[in-house]
Amino acid sequence: MYFCRMNKLVLIGTGNVAMHLFRALRECQDLEVIQVVGRDPAARAYFGSYTDTAALPEISQQGDLYLMAVSDDTIATVSRNLPLEGKLLVHTSGSVPLEALTERCRRGVFYPLQTFSKNRHLSLREVPLCLEAEDSQDLVQLQRIANRLSDRVYQIGSEQRRQLHLAAVFANNFTNHLYYLSQQILEGASLPFDMLLPLIGETAAKLQDVSPHEAQTGPARRADEGTIAAHRQLLKDATQKDVYTLLSNSIKQTYGKKL
Amino acid sequence: MYFCRMNKLVLIGTGNVAMHLFRALRECQDLEVIQVVGRDPAARAYFGSYTDTAALPEISQQGDLYLMAVSDDTIATVSRNLPLEGKLLVHTSGSVPLEALTERCRRGVFYPLQTFSKNRHLSLREVPLCLEAEDSQDLVQLQRIANRLSDRVYQIGSEQRRQLHLAAVFANNFTNHLYYLSQQILEGASLPFDMLLPLIGETAAKLQDVSPHEAQTGPARRADEGTIAAHRQLLKDATQKDVYTLLSNSIKQTYGKKL
Repeated sequence: MYFCRMNKLVLIGTGNVAMHLFRALRECQDLEVIQVVGRDPAARAYFGSYTDTAALPEISQQGDLYLMAVSDDTIATVSRNLPLEGKLLVHTSGSVPLEALTERCRRGVFYPLQTFSKNRHLSLREVPLCLEAEDSQDLVQLQRIANRLSDRVYQIGSEQRRQLHLAAVFANNFTNHLYYLSQQILEGASLPFDMLLPLIGETAAKLQDVSPHEAQTGPARRADEGTIAAHRQLLKDATQKDVYTLLSNSIKQTYGKKL
Repeated sequence: MYFCRMNKLVLIGTGNVAMHLFRALRECQDLEVIQVVGRDPAARAYFGSYTDTAALPEISQQGDLYLMAVSDDTIATVSRNLPLEGKLLVHTSGSVPLEALTERCRRGVFYPLQTFSKNRHLSLREVPLCLEAEDSQDLVQLQRIANRLSDRVYQIGSEQRRQLHLAAVFANNFTNHLYYLSQQILEGASLPFDMLLPLIGETAAKLQDVSPHEAQTGPARRADEGTIAAHRQLLKDATQKDVYTLLSNSIKQTYGKKL
């Protein structure tokens, strides 16, 4: 026997991911966030204008789905301390396995593949939601809820999710660090970073039409050793120079193979 | 004595940059591309529907401005072989110094800081145009034309332009290569690359509001050695592993300093 409809949600966590999920869930008729749970009363205040809030020990027993949006390294501990039995409990992390959740609950994952910032509103409609559940009926219920929030719902096992998260580290964390390094170079030349924003935007937007393999340009793509050597000489910072050399070699390797 | 108005342009080159400049220039009343010059008759065909085209030796002597959009490594040679004297000749490259142009002409640079692809239309309005000229009156004329095309016109010397181009290699070429590496990881897990597009788009778009220094997230930012070690183990490809390690270390270094 299983729940025909899961309409009552409890949100555990009060950070960026919790905030974005909460906003999106509030727009869904027939889904109700009956409570937001968190340690810090100040952080709960925002949610308190819309729904019940509580500290962890006072978590409601009336939820159909418990959605945990806490930092990766606290998932296991928080989950162990939840006074819940037999409830459907999911976390929202890309890198933490389903098994980190307490065995006292029916377990699942509800991973939104996106970077969330406090002050940027963004629609979940385009955000891939990656679902996993131990029980197939639970998976159906998670899919039903996810489909209300996003047009891109995927069923992804823990192993695939680990690879996906790793790919996201390259595409998001490392890319952002390259933006930072380019800003450092511009600062050294007294040039404003916003000069690069159109280029950065188009580099990303282009992927709608062209694969990254086809989109590659630049001195390393052309194996233009003269420009590469000149660039290496311009770079005074040892780490910047190492990054330049390694990524240039990786590009040369990529296209050398195909020649 | 100098030209009060420079309205007649000759475009040298038929590639992506030439194509995008030509499209933008055609939309400006009172500017006229009187000729497009290039080696390859097939490549000239597109331009031939709109204006006169010719091979290099038949270049028109009636131009006020000669805009050279050829590949970096041919700028010096092509410029040397141009049958022009005392004309204003500019190239469009980020990495080539003004001095690569022939001394028989008044020299300048007209560098659009953007990545151009054949099949993507994009407005030059937002594209930074970086200008340089030996003669101050020529610079004024270049500025007048650039202002017709773009809202972001900068005067940038050759040395600054070299740094700008280097920064662009990080922000565009290297970033695109990271997209490629993330696609490789996804392929290995039988996941489609387009799952990452919303994340990639938001990572770039975020910079409108937040500096890359503030925007940084991920295991290296948190110095989360457990996840870093797990990721390194997942990566089977030696180059991917090196890239992961070097960029993680660079991130740790960046934020370690500030602690």
